[in-house]
Order: sequence, then structure tokens, then C-alpha cells
Amino acid sequence: MRILIFNEHKQDKTEAAVRAVYPNFIHNALADVLKDGNTVKTVTLDDENCGITKEILDQTDVLFWWAHIAHHEVPDAVAELVRDAVLGGMGLVVLHSGHMAKPFKLLMGTACTLRWREGSRERIWVTSPGHPIAKGVPEQFELAQEEMYGEYFDIPTPDDIVFMGWFAGGEVFRSGVTFRRGLGKVFYFQPGHETSPTFHHPVIQTILRNAAEWAAPTCRGNILYCSNPAPLETGAE
Amino acid sequence: MRILIFNEHKQDKTEAAVRAVYPNFIHNALADVLKDGNTVKTVTLDDENCGITKEILDQTDVLFWWAHIAHHEVPDAVAELVRDAVLGGMGLVVLHSGHMAKPFKLLMGTACTLRWREGSRERIWVTSPGHPIAKGVPEQFELAQEEMYGEYFDIPTPDDIVFMGWFAGGEVFRSGVTFRRGLGKVFYFQPGHETSPTFHHPVIQTILRNAAEWAAPTCRGNILYCSNPAPLETGAE
Amino acid sequence: MRILIFNEHKQDKTEAAVRAVYPNFIHNALADVLKDGNTVKTVTLDDENCGITKEILDQTDVLFWWAHIAHHEVPDAVAELVRDAVLGGMGLVVLHSGHMAKPFKLLMGTACTLRWREGSRERIWVTSPGHPIAKGVPEQFELAQEEMYGEYFDIPTPDDIVFMGWFAGGEVFRSGVTFRRGLGKVFYFQPGHETSPTFHHPVIQTILRNAAEWAAPTCRGNILYCSNPAPLETGAE
Amino acid sequence: MRILIFNEHKQDKTEAAVRAVYPNFIHNALADVLKDGNTVKTVTLDDENCGITKEILDQTDVLFWWAHIAHHEVPDAVAELVRDAVLGGMGLVVLHSGHMAKPFKLLMGTACTLRWREGSRERIWVTSPGHPIAKGVPEQFELAQEEMYGEYFDIPTPDDIVFMGWFAGGEVFRSGVTFRRGLGKVFYFQPGHETSPTFHHPVIQTILRNAAEWAAPTCRGNILYCSNPAPLETGAE
Repeated sequence: MRILIFNEHKQDKTEAAVRAVYPNFIHNALADVLKDGNTVKTVTLDDENCGITKEILDQTDVLFWWAHIAHHEVPDAVAELVRDAVLGGMGLVVLHSGHMAKPFKLLMGTACTLRWREGSRERIWVTSPGHPIAKGVPEQFELAQEEMYGEYFDIPTPDDIVFMGWFAGGEVFRSGVTFRRGLGKVFYFQPGHETSPTFHHPVIQTILRNAAEWAAPTCRGNILYCSNPAPLETGAE
Repeated sequence: MRILIFNEHKQDKTEAAVRAVYPNFIHNALADVLKDGNTVKTVTLDDENCGITKEILDQTDVLFWWAHIAHHEVPDAVAELVRDAVLGGMGLVVLHSGHMAKPFKLLMGTACTLRWREGSRERIWVTSPGHPIAKGVPEQFELAQEEMYGEYFDIPTPDDIVFMGWFAGGEVFRSGVTFRRGLGKVFYFQPGHETSPTFHHPVIQTILRNAAEWAAPTCRGNILYCSNPAPLETGAE
Repeated sequence: MRILIFNEHKQDKTEAAVRAVYPNFIHNALADVLKDGNTVKTVTLDDENCGITKEILDQTDVLFWWAHIAHHEVPDAVAELVRDAVLGGMGLVVLHSGHMAKPFKLLMGTACTLRWREGSRERIWVTSPGHPIAKGVPEQFELAQEEMYGEYFDIPTPDDIVFMGWFAGGEVFRSGVTFRRGLGKVFYFQPGHETSPTFHHPVIQTILRNAAEWAAPTCRGNILYCSNPAPLETGAE
Repeated sequence: MRILIFNEHKQDKTEAAVRAVYPNFIHNALADVLKDGNTVKTVTLDDENCGITKEILDQTDVLFWWAHIAHHEVPDAVAELVRDAVLGGMGLVVLHSGHMAKPFKLLMGTACTLRWREGSRERIWVTSPGHPIAKGVPEQFELAQEEMYGEYFDIPTPDDIVFMGWFAGGEVFRSGVTFRRGLGKVFYFQPGHETSPTFHHPVIQTILRNAAEWAAPTCRGNILYCSNPAPLETGAE
């Protein structure tokens, strides 16, 4: 698979608490998880146009997206390129605070809002044990420190809810949800706060690798047109 | 119910073939169908800002939308007002070529494209006979002349497929589909071409009235925010 | 609405801890909640054939089902009558340990198993705030003492997840889920343990009344046949 | 993959019109389609207990099921074994008149009825072009002679509608539908009438091979129990 990782790359440059967890930056931490058997590239907001063009997306099977405080710095045109690539078959895995990223919001059509609080303990439950993304994942596991994301999560009805999160502070969340959009597949996954070592957790790494495999395209194409064909049935009208 | 009808009001002003079918214009034809027991208002592209403001939508239970050749004349800001009103609970019924209308595309997140051909014969089948929108509708009925809309229809997985269309030219279509978005409900209905007397058909009128009743809000509210509450559980973290 | 309440009526006759909470029995407690504006009847395992016949179900809009330790005492033929009535349009509300009741299992086709533990504290979250069953329900509320029901809950993908449960012991659950089956609607609701005063809780009572209204039939009919009609299109084959 | 094919093997033994199309019987025709790269076994009603035991199903990745006039000859216990194997992860592909087969009806919970007529012309449309089962399938293709199966098809809301059928006689049908049940996946596919050369059609063969691959288990297990675990959270209740 050809995997592209977008990281806004702000807090992991400037904030000590984030550097402590991801000294080699979030995009490289994700690349380390995903590189076995795959071609992995990384881009950030520091790259011109986020390092994203139509040509690059055409050569991408699955795009991972991590972003938090600078969603507004992603140009609308880039977000639209990502949306169109998903509709044309590219897989998209949106991580944590990416729930407010422009491409995800474009693809959902809803506000994608939720409630949140830093510094929570989370327990993740598998709620679709036969789903490919849950392969090799225990029926539940704990993240000692994550950011609480709680319901109501304003998304369309997901095709599948693979994981649900329990938080020590009293909240629940649809933590791993899938959506088909056009020819492409989208997976949103809630864990991954910048000050938590989530992407170093072996079960999380299994989930990320499963998600890449699941989201890879079955076919690519251009359905972004209206066609006006002749009748198939002779003299039918 | 307080119903608002938007009609772009172009072809029914200028084209003889449309005037012949809807001499009193499409919005008024729809208003006639929906007026019993309801407060019905109509707006068009001739009104400033499409006649749509946040205050007006706050006072609207269900918005009907018919448009065809002038989707681009609807300001983005108006489309976003409609989307936000749906997320806040307002019902939306999108008719026929409204599949390419800006508010519908914003709410779907997909291309909403399809194949099409003018002058087809259509047979509509009920595929969710217990659904409120199918109440009183026979198991199938025929429209002697409609525009063919054929698959693949690029929409997210609908919550329900209430109607499916059969076309004499060899095509099929998900002709009546529902979507929950935020607090609001959306119904897309394929029949309603401007040169066909579709909105004069008694079964179509039953469906339109059912759709209004189904789409009416259960509750209204503002979920367009992220909240950051304190833990509910004392000492839980 | 014509509401029928089935209670197996075992523990609320013989166990002091249950009598303390429901001195007038569970079916009567439910009847008290639902009687305003409705015709309510109750039946139990003490009635011949559970008090259920095809004629009685034909006269029932919504059937509530509470049972726990005596699912096996319900004759298969009664379970099949209930299933067929739902397919023909009757609403069904299955409460708590009714997840293992024969009619529910017949309608789901899955094992309907889950994990459980008595004496838990539960917090219920609304996850579909625009759904009619959530009308008037706060965004979350607490039940000081309920039975923990935890994932994985072996059910088909629900049409809607109206409520999700958080348990102090670390579990989550899809606590309020809807399913369309044939012409009928099914709502499963997890709270309602026999030693907890759940059915006395005002929010729970709101939910039960909403569920009855939501599950009431849009239409009734017999779709339990295969038909073999002539072609609709002359000379089409 | 280890594939098991069940064919009731009645009409393809005794009826000349069927023998003419499938001289080597339906199960062997299917085996020929599926044998490349897979271990394929076939069983029929002539085998003791349909040739199906728990041990055999435990060694099966995907079970194909073709049956028509002798559903009642399949013992209930065999149908329950199949259902339980699906809940435990085995894939199930149900063909054509298998819509009334006992294992399918058990897994659906609905009547599974439809309308039908022999000797129709069908056109099949892809309605989920990114789905693995649609891989390599053209956007539409024709079967010159099939049995018409028409809506209303009494099934639960499918997870995906991969194919929709158009019939020259005026009907439409959800011809290829998927369902997750427990750990297993179910695909129902409408074409395959015994007097039509459907299983010799190259596109149909592609679909059957895709279906086998899609339905193969991600994991196998036993979720057919209720567990009663201790709290995960110390002192939580």
C-alpha cells in the first residue's frame, strides 16, 4: 500500500509536553507504525499546499490525517482535493482531533462536534468483533491517559461502530466508526491526543495497521459527473 | 406545521412547456398540495437572498426545495444557513433535480451525481412499506412521463430506502431516501421534472404530505458547538 | 393506542427484594406509566398461553415485554405469533432481560448475548437527540442502581442507537436500539432490573411513553406470502 | 479458503430443463467457479444430515447455499448449526431461491418473502461500486433469462445494497445485499434460477468469487454465551 500521512505539525514542534511523547514528531511516529510492507510518505502544513496535490492523492491508497489547532490553515482547495479523492476511491483515516478537520467535515456534512476534556482514563470496547479493523484486538483494553471525547458526537449514522469508548469521568463515545463515501472508505478513530503516548500502544498500532488495510481501495474511478445515456431498452419509452 | 417552499422559479417563468404544466408556478403547485392544516410560505431566487434568513428558518418546521438550472445562483451563505438549520432540527425535503442543490450536497458530503434522460416512463415501488412516508401509498404506481434518474446515485448509505424507481429504458434508482443529519431529517424524492405533471398526481401528493409530517422536528436546538465540561464522576480520573 | 404488557410475573410474586420495589407487580407498574390516553391490558405466564392469541395481537398497537428467568416457559407458538404480528406491523418494546426472550431472538436472528453484573451504577447518554424516543430526555441522566449490561451485545446493526449506557464498573452498552422488521418497529431498552426502581424514574417513564408512540403501527398488513403476479409491462419479456 | 457448497440437488437430478443447463449438477457448476485457489467440497440433501455437522462447519470458511423446492427437508437442527456457525464467524452466501431456506430465515428474523415470475429478462446495476463484491463488475449487465424476484422483499435493512435488479416486466429488486450477523458475514444474491445458465455467466462468476473472498472470516469464536465478569474498575460501584 501507498500511505500518505498528514500531520499539521505544530504542537509537536513547539510544546515540550508533546515533544516529550513524540520527540520524532507525530507523522514520523505514525510512519513507523505503518511502514512495514508499505510505501509511506509524510507531509505537514510546512509543505507548500500541505504537500498535497491531485497527482499525489492519485498515487495514494490511504491517507492518514492528524491535526488539532490549525485546521483553518489547511486551504479549502486542499480539503476539497482530499474529499474528491475519497469519493474516487482513496481511503481516509482521520485521527482524534481531526474530527474538526476540513476534509472530514466536508465528507460528513454535519458539525462533527462533541464534548471533550483533557487528561482522562479511557477503556475501549470492541462492538463489531468480526470487523477487519478489530482483527487481533482484545475485547477491551485501557488507555491510562487520553483526552475524553464524549457524546453527542454529531456525525451521520455510521456504517459500523467498531469501537466504543468508556471514560472514567462518566462519558461514552463512538470511538471507532466507518463510513462509505463514493468509492472510498473513511475510518474515524478517537484516541491520539498529542500529550498521550497513544500511538506507542501496541493495540492502537494494530488498529492503525488494520485500518490502513481495510481502507485501501477496491477500485478507483471518477464518479464525479452526471451522465446522460441513451435508453438501454430499444423502443422502451 | 410551518412549511417553507423554495423554488428557483426560472423555467416555470420562461419556458412554455413548463408553464403548460405549472401555469401557477411550481412553488404554488407545491403550496396547494401542502396548505391544508399548515402555514405555507414560498420563496424564490427573485427574493433577496433567496428569501431565506436564519430568523425565517428558525420559524420553519420543514423546508421543501425545488431547483434545477440555477443552483449556482444560491449564495453559499444561504446554503450554509439551510444546512445549519437542518443540523438544528429543521426538516428538509429535496425534490428531483435538487439532488445537485448546494444545501443537499453540503449535507451529503458526496458528489450526488447520477445518470439521467428526459422523457421516461417510471414505475415506483414501495420498499419500506411500514415507513410513515409510505402511508397510504400503493405497493407500486406509474408515472407516465418523468425524467429518468438512474444508478449509480452517489449518496451516503441512506437510513431508509422508502421507494425504488423502475424506468422503461432499463434503469433503476433509489427514488425516495431518508437521512438523519444532526437533529434534523432529510428526505430526497426523485420525481418532479418540470415538464411532467408529477406534482398533480394524487399519490405523489400523498407522499409529499407524508414527507412533511415525517420531517417535522422532534426537537430544535443548537448542537453546533464543542463543549468542555467538568467530569461527572467525582475523583474519577 | 392499544397497549398490551406481558410480564412473566415470577420474581415479582415470590422475591421480597422485587416485591419491595414493585409491590403491585411489574406489569401494573408499566401499565401505570402507559395508561394515560391509551387502552392498556396486561398478561402474564399465569394466563393460558401467556394470554396471547392472534386475535389479541391483531387488536394491539404496541406490545411491551418484560421477562427474565422463565423465557423457556413461553411456548414457541406464542413467540412465533408475536414475531408474525411485528412483521405485520405491531410495535414491540422489549425491556431489559427480555434480550433473551424468544420473540426478540426470533426477530434478531442473533444470539442476543451480552455481559452482565448486578448492582451497578449507570449513566445513560442520548446518542440520537433528534429521535422521537429521545424527546424530552436530557442529554444524560443517572440510574443509581441498575444491572450492568455490557458489550459485546450480539445484535444485528440497529437502525438507530438512541441511548448508550456508561457503567461505573468500566463497561459501555448500546442501551436503546431500534430495528424495523417487516411492517413493524422494535425498540430494545436495557434498563429495568427487577430489584431497581427503574420504572419509577420519571425520565425512564418519558422514554417508555415515547417508545410506545414511536412503535405504533403506520400500517398493518399481511406480507407473509410470496406472490406470483403477471408482468406489469405488456409484451415486456 | 475452504468452501462448502450445499445444493438440495432435486430438480437438477430429475427435470430435463434443468439437466440441460446444469448437466453436471448445480453444486458442481458452483464448485467449478470457486475451485481456483480454494478447497471446495459439496454436499446435498442425499447426504446424511445434509452432509453438515458442527465439525465440518468449523472447518469451513464460506458456505454457499442453493435450494428451491425442498427447504422443508433440511432438518431444523442443521439450519441451527449453520446459523450458529455464521454467528461464530463463518461466511454464508445464499443464492436465489435460498431466500426461503431455513438458515437464511433464521438469520434474518423476517418472512423473506417477495414476488416472483419465471422467464424474465433482468438487468443488474451496481449500487455500491466501491464494495469488494462489485470488484471488476461493469456498472450494469444483462441476464437474458432469469426468474423475476420483485419488491417488497421482506428483509431487515441490509448493511449494503451492492446490486439492484431491473426486470423487463416492470419490477425492481435489491438483488445483492449484505448483512453482518455475529462474527459472520452473509451475502444474499438473487440470480441463479435452475433453468437459466446464470452460473455460467462470466460476470456472475466474478461476483461469486468476490463474495467468497468478502465473506471469509476475519476471526472465529464463540460469542454464544452470557458472561458475568467482575467490575474492571476497583471500587467503582
